[in-house]
Amino acid sequence: MTDTQVNVQESPEDDYALDKELVANVVAAIEAMDAIALDTLLERLHPADVADLLEQIDPSERRALLSLWSMGIDGDILSELEESLREEVIAFLPAGVLEEAVRDLDSDDVVDLIEDLEDQQQEQILEALNDADRVAVEQALAFPEFSAGRLMQRELVVAPQHWTVGEAIDHLRSEDDLPDAFYHVILVDSAYHPVGYVTLGRLLGSPRQTPLTELQETSFRVIPVTQPERDVAYAFNQYHLISAPVVDEDDRLVGVITIDDAMVVLDEEAEEDILRLAGVGGDESLSDRTLETVRQRFPWLAVNLGTAILASVVISQFEEILSQIVALAVLMPIVASMGGNAGTQSLTVAVRAIATRDLTGSNLLRVVRREAVAGLINGVIFAVVMAIIGVLWFGTPLLGIVIAVAMVVNLVVAALAGILIPIGLEKLGVDPALASGAFVTTVTDVVGFFAFLGLAGALLV
Amino acid sequence: MTDTQVNVQESPEDDYALDKELVANVVAAIEAMDAIALDTLLERLHPADVADLLEQIDPSERRALLSLWSMGIDGDILSELEESLREEVIAFLPAGVLEEAVRDLDSDDVVDLIEDLEDQQQEQILEALNDADRVAVEQALAFPEFSAGRLMQRELVVAPQHWTVGEAIDHLRSEDDLPDAFYHVILVDSAYHPVGYVTLGRLLGSPRQTPLTELQETSFRVIPVTQPERDVAYAFNQYHLISAPVVDEDDRLVGVITIDDAMVVLDEEAEEDILRLAGVGGDESLSDRTLETVRQRFPWLAVNLGTAILASVVISQFEEILSQIVALAVLMPIVASMGGNAGTQSLTVAVRAIATRDLTGSNLLRVVRREAVAGLINGVIFAVVMAIIGVLWFGTPLLGIVIAVAMVVNLVVAALAGILIPIGLEKLGVDPALASGAFVTTVTDVVGFFAFLGLAGALLV
Repeated sequence: MTDTQVNVQESPEDDYALDKELVANVVAAIEAMDAIALDTLLERLHPADVADLLEQIDPSERRALLSLWSMGIDGDILSELEESLREEVIAFLPAGVLEEAVRDLDSDDVVDLIEDLEDQQQEQILEALNDADRVAVEQALAFPEFSAGRLMQRELVVAPQHWTVGEAIDHLRSEDDLPDAFYHVILVDSAYHPVGYVTLGRLLGSPRQTPLTELQETSFRVIPVTQPERDVAYAFNQYHLISAPVVDEDDRLVGVITIDDAMVVLDEEAEEDILRLAGVGGDESLSDRTLETVRQRFPWLAVNLGTAILASVVISQFEEILSQIVALAVLMPIVASMGGNAGTQSLTVAVRAIATRDLTGSNLLRVVRREAVAGLINGVIFAVVMAIIGVLWFGTPLLGIVIAVAMVVNLVVAALAGILIPIGLEKLGVDPALASGAFVTTVTDVVGFFAFLGLAGALLV
Repeated sequence: MTDTQVNVQESPEDDYALDKELVANVVAAIEAMDAIALDTLLERLHPADVADLLEQIDPSERRALLSLWSMGIDGDILSELEESLREEVIAFLPAGVLEEAVRDLDSDDVVDLIEDLEDQQQEQILEALNDADRVAVEQALAFPEFSAGRLMQRELVVAPQHWTVGEAIDHLRSEDDLPDAFYHVILVDSAYHPVGYVTLGRLLGSPRQTPLTELQETSFRVIPVTQPERDVAYAFNQYHLISAPVVDEDDRLVGVITIDDAMVVLDEEAEEDILRLAGVGGDESLSDRTLETVRQRFPWLAVNLGTAILASVVISQFEEILSQIVALAVLMPIVASMGGNAGTQSLTVAVRAIATRDLTGSNLLRVVRREAVAGLINGVIFAVVMAIIGVLWFGTPLLGIVIAVAMVVNLVVAALAGILIPIGLEKLGVDPALASGAFVTTVTDVVGFFAFLGLAGALLV
């Protein structure tokens, strides 16, 4: 079946971006309403690439493609689609195609597929499943969103802990319906508690009479079914897990999570952090419509307007001196801007360190001290530079001193705010990636303008 | 061996952060110079947690811990340590301990461990390896940094494509030295080209006489040995690969990359993007010393100083009107700040979309249009709000119109700059995560001040 292999080295520039020519050919086939050409082009693509293509073409092209090629849409393609497009695509599929598509998926993929759909579409898909799968999916949906219970698959490969390699292999050979992907045989005691696991590699490499307990891995972690998926992803990454059994509150085995699912979560969480740090709604996607984009960007801009007005109120307290010395108006944005940037640096490092559990009670004091001293050193360097520029530009040594002192003050404050604000928000249960930026910028703007204009008022009049 | 299982649910607040009490106990044992207590505390920790602990305690405590517990440091702990600490720790280990530590590692882990060490330490570790391992590591080091060749392991499990399940299992049982972790048997032709693979689950679940070719997975991707590791991680995430064979320029099998290595790279790349977007050197770590922190933050602050001065030069062109209408000095930071934030939103979305191959020639025009229209809509909303505030605050309707128009202009420009600048940098081969921020902020500052003060000059005097 190597004919389905897609050459990953098609372009020297980018191995994996969708081929521009391919997309152009697909669009041409859509416009010509040539279903056979379309099928030839799409059938050799990986489902993830078909989903990317559906996301990248125009909405009108997408509808035309779905009309021509609805029977080509399978469960894997639906799983790969961005949530914002799934409803649209599912609504477009003939009922028979949709039912066929979801029947081949593992229960965890069905859960992932339908958890954000409207009730009616959810119902339609649930009805397409056989009884066992439907019960499995409904049980998973009973767990909180973003929990291990939603992420896990229920298809398990277990063995009583007293079995030998031969017994386990014979059992596997007699099973008709093994999961699509599994990497361990989970050993359970008589109460169905997981007690260890054996990798398939060790199972295959050992004589039949070897007891499974002799092959058990030394490190073994179970995941509570209610654990947030963010923590699950962290555990996989931190402890290099390949798969991990999931247990209920009585420590009984209820499912298994595999590394590929954890990798998807890790990627989504990083994406969400990046977008939130920039003030964008964490689930914005490139195929969103314009109004959705406006909605995702608006809240942060509104918050920023509030903090900017607060800074303006600070400035307005110094209208008198500003009208006397217009150079202050020219230079004041520099102090605020440097503070804002230094604060963003510190807060980003802090937010990531909190997410990766590297910033704890044990090193907090040292990290805060380091940030403050680093802020002081950079503050002094840039203060000297700015003092020289201020004197050369405006010819007033006192103005140079004012801007230098304000710069040092604001960079130290920025460093401290950048680390203490995310930590404080985390303690209050607020996502520091989401909210730190607004607070830190407010602090650096207010302190920057106040220090610069206040000092100017004291020294220059 | 379930006694080595660490309960992951120790604290309801955070399942995986290092236990504060544990760290306190470790520090107490270090201070009491109690090697036995220290050993009891540390030996049940996962190597990744020991590494985190070494990173989180004070440098002086770390040195004391290493003196007391040097024989406890194994290769896994060294692998888990941040690069910035590895040299320090390795320099501290007695030669015998270091040699013992590296001998147990797979070749890819040794490569990862030593690639950033100084020559002398590299030499010391290479000498500790047996001949076969040393050759493997030296060959890997001959590949470019951050390439698939550095990431892959050379320990392979292959089978001729004409074998049956029984032949493969017999071969695995007869091998003394199977890799620690493997998930597939790679099928090769007579010229050692990989032609497909069989998952261990299918191997175990099938009768002995089944030909391996019948069990082959339909989708199968090979990774060129020179491919950048960022692309490798993307491929694993996009195509849900568990392992992938690596081939040389003649398409011959030279190694294999597994998903756990790809997950580490994916995590590192996201981390690097997050830090770079905030203007922090991509390899900053929390255990860096103060001067290293200063060094990581300095370049971006210097660039920002340049852009801030440029903005000040723009402002200085309007000194006359600023001295006449001081309200302009009060309000002007608002326009620049809103533009800066809107630009950061757009550029972050664009940088991520480039990294995930979601922004391509096929949808570029549509995305640019969407950004511009979204910027326009948000611009109009905030323009109306600011016009009202401006009129209420300063009682001048014309001032309200000036700030409103400047706001609309700057938010549209911000949206366009935020998407076009990262794309332009990418085309020039510059990492858009690293450099976009400076350019976009310069544009929004300059345009913001110029539009606001220029309009004011035209309308208000």
